[in-house]
Amino acid sequence: MKSNARKSGAAPAGRRNREAEILQAALAIFAEKGYAAASIQDVADAVGVLKGSVYHYIDSKEDLLFQIFENAHGDAELMMRELEALDVDPVERLRAYLERGVANTLQNLELQSLYFRDWRYLTGERRAKLVERRRQYDRYLRDLIAAAYKFKGLQGTVNQRFVSSFVIGGTNWVADWYRPDGKDSPAEVAKSYAQLALAAVLGVAEPAAAARPR
Amino acid sequence: MKSNARKSGAAPAGRRNREAEILQAALAIFAEKGYAAASIQDVADAVGVLKGSVYHYIDSKEDLLFQIFENAHGDAELMMRELEALDVDPVERLRAYLERGVANTLQNLELQSLYFRDWRYLTGERRAKLVERRRQYDRYLRDLIAAAYKFKGLQGTVNQRFVSSFVIGGTNWVADWYRPDGKDSPAEVAKSYAQLALAAVLGVAEPAAAARPR
Repeated sequence: MKSNARKSGAAPAGRRNREAEILQAALAIFAEKGYAAASIQDVADAVGVLKGSVYHYIDSKEDLLFQIFENAHGDAELMMRELEALDVDPVERLRAYLERGVANTLQNLELQSLYFRDWRYLTGERRAKLVERRRQYDRYLRDLIAAAYKFKGLQGTVNQRFVSSFVIGGTNWVADWYRPDGKDSPAEVAKSYAQLALAAVLGVAEPAAAARPR
Repeated sequence: MKSNARKSGAAPAGRRNREAEILQAALAIFAEKGYAAASIQDVADAVGVLKGSVYHYIDSKEDLLFQIFENAHGDAELMMRELEALDVDPVERLRAYLERGVANTLQNLELQSLYFRDWRYLTGERRAKLVERRRQYDRYLRDLIAAAYKFKGLQGTVNQRFVSSFVIGGTNWVADWYRPDGKDSPAEVAKSYAQLALAAVLGVAEPAAAARPR
């Protein structure tokens, strides 16, 4: 969306629908061809509009990539707010976060593949914003892990940056092999991956008292 | 390498060096620009030869990508043979595999990023060969895990395909953030990630007797 359009506040419904349509088509095309090989013309062709109409909503191909990711970040933030509202102990909150995160990945396989393959094509301010978002997610996960350790009277024996990166990598990996038409139900996959991640997190911790200065 | 060159057996040292130089330049260029955006001309420019000279060693850009990965597979197979020769119990063999795998990733960051981002650009027979290699690694890891469970009298409570994928994803993820000029030593990272992966594997198992039919 161009900045003047962004400032316009309540855009007409037709405009919003067309924009959503363009973002959806761009996601499918970028995911399939790869961002580098895809063009605005491909997106225009898929939506059935002239190239100039696409530029009415976005500034550039890079802006299109960025807007796709921005939409996804909104969903992730909604999930975080829902988690905060859950009336469960910190270990179960961590488990719920992991399970929902995987379920979310399974529902957005194209987006996930595109994100992890092509996010580095973003430059300048857009890239900085995305890197900052990733830092926020990482911090959020590390806070959930710290709360779970505290609740269980544990302390980590491994650098906590490594723990969160391992968990993020392990759970994101479902996008590498999962096929919606395969035999594994999304619920079973999400539950199992959350179990694996929780086992890793809790398995590299020891009773907090053990390392207290005597 | 073209098939006639492959069949020639002992190639002169100069030819082998030039080929290695081309593969190394292609790896750096593909990793930086992305496979889709890079060209054979870029590779020729980097090596300082004419484009035609590059085609003396490879059939196509896709062949270049494939040859880069083939070289890496050779290293992985060497590591597997070394592991088989280790005189340790199955849990320690699994730990050694994980630790060496991460250390290997850290030593070949460009290759890892290229592999996981762009392997899908391979088509036909080359893609089939690569997919088969990935299946072999997965089977190898699952055999190591099964041996470790057996040794400890355990049985898995989670689908073993999920366990190996989670471990592969978690350990490969180091390539996403690791910087050789950062503060984390490769040895510490490798040891920690192996510890996390082993905790996940052993944490989703229970005593084998528990689920035996009564």
